[in-house]
Amino acid sequence: MITAVVATADPGGAGPLNRQWVLQRRPTGALQPEDFALRLQPRAEPELKPGQIWVRNLAFSCAPTIRNWMNEPSRSYRAAIGLGEPIAGPACAQVLRSANNRFAVHTRVIGISSWQDYSIIDAEKAAVPVLSVPADMSAIESLSAYGFNCLTAYFGLLRVGHLTERDTLLVSAAAGSVGSVAAQIGKIKGCRVIGIAGGRQKCDWLLRDCGLDAAIDYQQEDLAARLKLYAPAGVNVFFDNVGGSILAVATEHMALHGLIVVCGQISAYDGDRPAPGPPDMMRIVYGRLRIQGFVTGDFLGEVDQARAELGQWLRQGRLVIRQDVRHGFEKLPAGLIDVFRGANTGALLVSVADPI
Amino acid sequence: MITAVVATADPGGAGPLNRQWVLQRRPTGALQPEDFALRLQPRAEPELKPGQIWVRNLAFSCAPTIRNWMNEPSRSYRAAIGLGEPIAGPACAQVLRSANNRFAVHTRVIGISSWQDYSIIDAEKAAVPVLSVPADMSAIESLSAYGFNCLTAYFGLLRVGHLTERDTLLVSAAAGSVGSVAAQIGKIKGCRVIGIAGGRQKCDWLLRDCGLDAAIDYQQEDLAARLKLYAPAGVNVFFDNVGGSILAVATEHMALHGLIVVCGQISAYDGDRPAPGPPDMMRIVYGRLRIQGFVTGDFLGEVDQARAELGQWLRQGRLVIRQDVRHGFEKLPAGLIDVFRGANTGALLVSVADPI
Repeated sequence: MITAVVATADPGGAGPLNRQWVLQRRPTGALQPEDFALRLQPRAEPELKPGQIWVRNLAFSCAPTIRNWMNEPSRSYRAAIGLGEPIAGPACAQVLRSANNRFAVHTRVIGISSWQDYSIIDAEKAAVPVLSVPADMSAIESLSAYGFNCLTAYFGLLRVGHLTERDTLLVSAAAGSVGSVAAQIGKIKGCRVIGIAGGRQKCDWLLRDCGLDAAIDYQQEDLAARLKLYAPAGVNVFFDNVGGSILAVATEHMALHGLIVVCGQISAYDGDRPAPGPPDMMRIVYGRLRIQGFVTGDFLGEVDQARAELGQWLRQGRLVIRQDVRHGFEKLPAGLIDVFRGANTGALLVSVADPI
Repeated sequence: MITAVVATADPGGAGPLNRQWVLQRRPTGALQPEDFALRLQPRAEPELKPGQIWVRNLAFSCAPTIRNWMNEPSRSYRAAIGLGEPIAGPACAQVLRSANNRFAVHTRVIGISSWQDYSIIDAEKAAVPVLSVPADMSAIESLSAYGFNCLTAYFGLLRVGHLTERDTLLVSAAAGSVGSVAAQIGKIKGCRVIGIAGGRQKCDWLLRDCGLDAAIDYQQEDLAARLKLYAPAGVNVFFDNVGGSILAVATEHMALHGLIVVCGQISAYDGDRPAPGPPDMMRIVYGRLRIQGFVTGDFLGEVDQARAELGQWLRQGRLVIRQDVRHGFEKLPAGLIDVFRGANTGALLVSVADPI
């Protein structure tokens, strides 16, 4: 139930200006700094429509999916970002005014916000859910250990993937912010886990710190030959958020009745063509394979339980979260560019303000 | 349990020769009569290994999947047919000698046999199961109404597809031997059913005789526009055995959480390239779509029940089977070529002998 009663907090120490990173031009191919422009505008306290909240953004996640929304059409669940509009992206934010009785003034939320100091979030119309952040959770934690990436890995493996301990699990982008959690949940559940990552350093981290059974450096090693070696009986569950040629090779190494869980297609975000499905659908037929797409928003009712379980694994030292935290609003475009260059180690988060 | 006890029936009226259609050359692109050669050899009663049966073939089904096995590699669950070897294909056959105590001499079976008068079937090693044919079922019926095609439609929709009566079902190759049964089972289960077929005549048959809600002639109509018109809320279950561009368009019109059941990819059998998956995997992600491959052999334990239910629908007039029955061993290659030209109406069956 949403009332139109509007409550307001004083934005306190925030300045009179609203900084924005806007989409200056549509990127073609790899992101460039010139795709973004910094704009300053006076801070204006907006009128809110029912369901909306006005927030001060505290920290942003440079999530690969942002790249989709910079394309026209966006190939995504939300429309393309308009030219001259602030970049949309996941953020932790503090509620300054609220016309939504699910989110009280002074509390914090995570959701799809925009790259500026102050944003309006249409909390009831959002394709990605707006989630409350408990008081004992830091803004960075709310976007990393308990944020959308970890929840995606959790729900993808345990609600969509139905992992069992007899399974051999393959994870692409396994050193990334979603993949590394998926791979570790696989180990926690007793699976044999193989990770695919770019570069020896990432692979070493997966083997040493995340306890994976095998890691394949797709830049240096022959993926097909390694999969044959490491998964001689085939892969039962492939958690894929890369797609493209990695999906094509992995499909050839699935066990009968194998499951490919798809939560993203990073290989195509940074280009002008979509990522295609596997090149030979007869492998799907004769392999009795299943490909299942999913989005985290479908599991809203289970977020508290998922956060509790993730927290327990973190405290027990069974789950390692690697994050690359940067400070300062001016670092946002470079952060997103680094994600596509593979120059980050773990979730790339940019903190932009202290909580009020 | 297989014993090595061999029992034998006299082949009776059969001649002293064994006619064979062999693979003369590997087809490139569309099948040609010159891809096949007729060979005569003396009939020799073979020594059987445990599990094998020696049969006289009574009728063959010119199934599209045969085309796969003529490629090298076969892109299938069985190896390519060797050059000079008899064409492999589904048949109804009478057991003449048996080293398999599941199949008694004089009884009939359906399974993957070969295009010759007499074949050895390795009934325990076959990728496609060998099924007994009840005494009150004709050889043609065993390959049509109660054969692999109808069983594929039945299991694909009711065991893999989990149809519910609220669903909008889309069927490709809907006038074909698998698709027409799938579409009609959809109607029996209370779904709204849309069929895709090539040519106005096939579409008219689907509307008039099979009771479909809509039929799209993909050769003359704009598939995307028609799907928008006929399935405004999207397709819940897509039963696809065509693939290629039809899969690509249909994927764009799936409802959230939709299911694509894949049992074949006819669009690619008759060419030298495999049929690829959907062109944009992000549609799978954001649409929460599932793609599920299956083969009929996984549902062996339910064949009797499926045949009973199919028989009931046939007797009630709720299920119409269209078959194109030809007579004579010499008709086999032309029959298979006609299937890929779309020149058949329903399952193309070739009867080659009266039962002993």
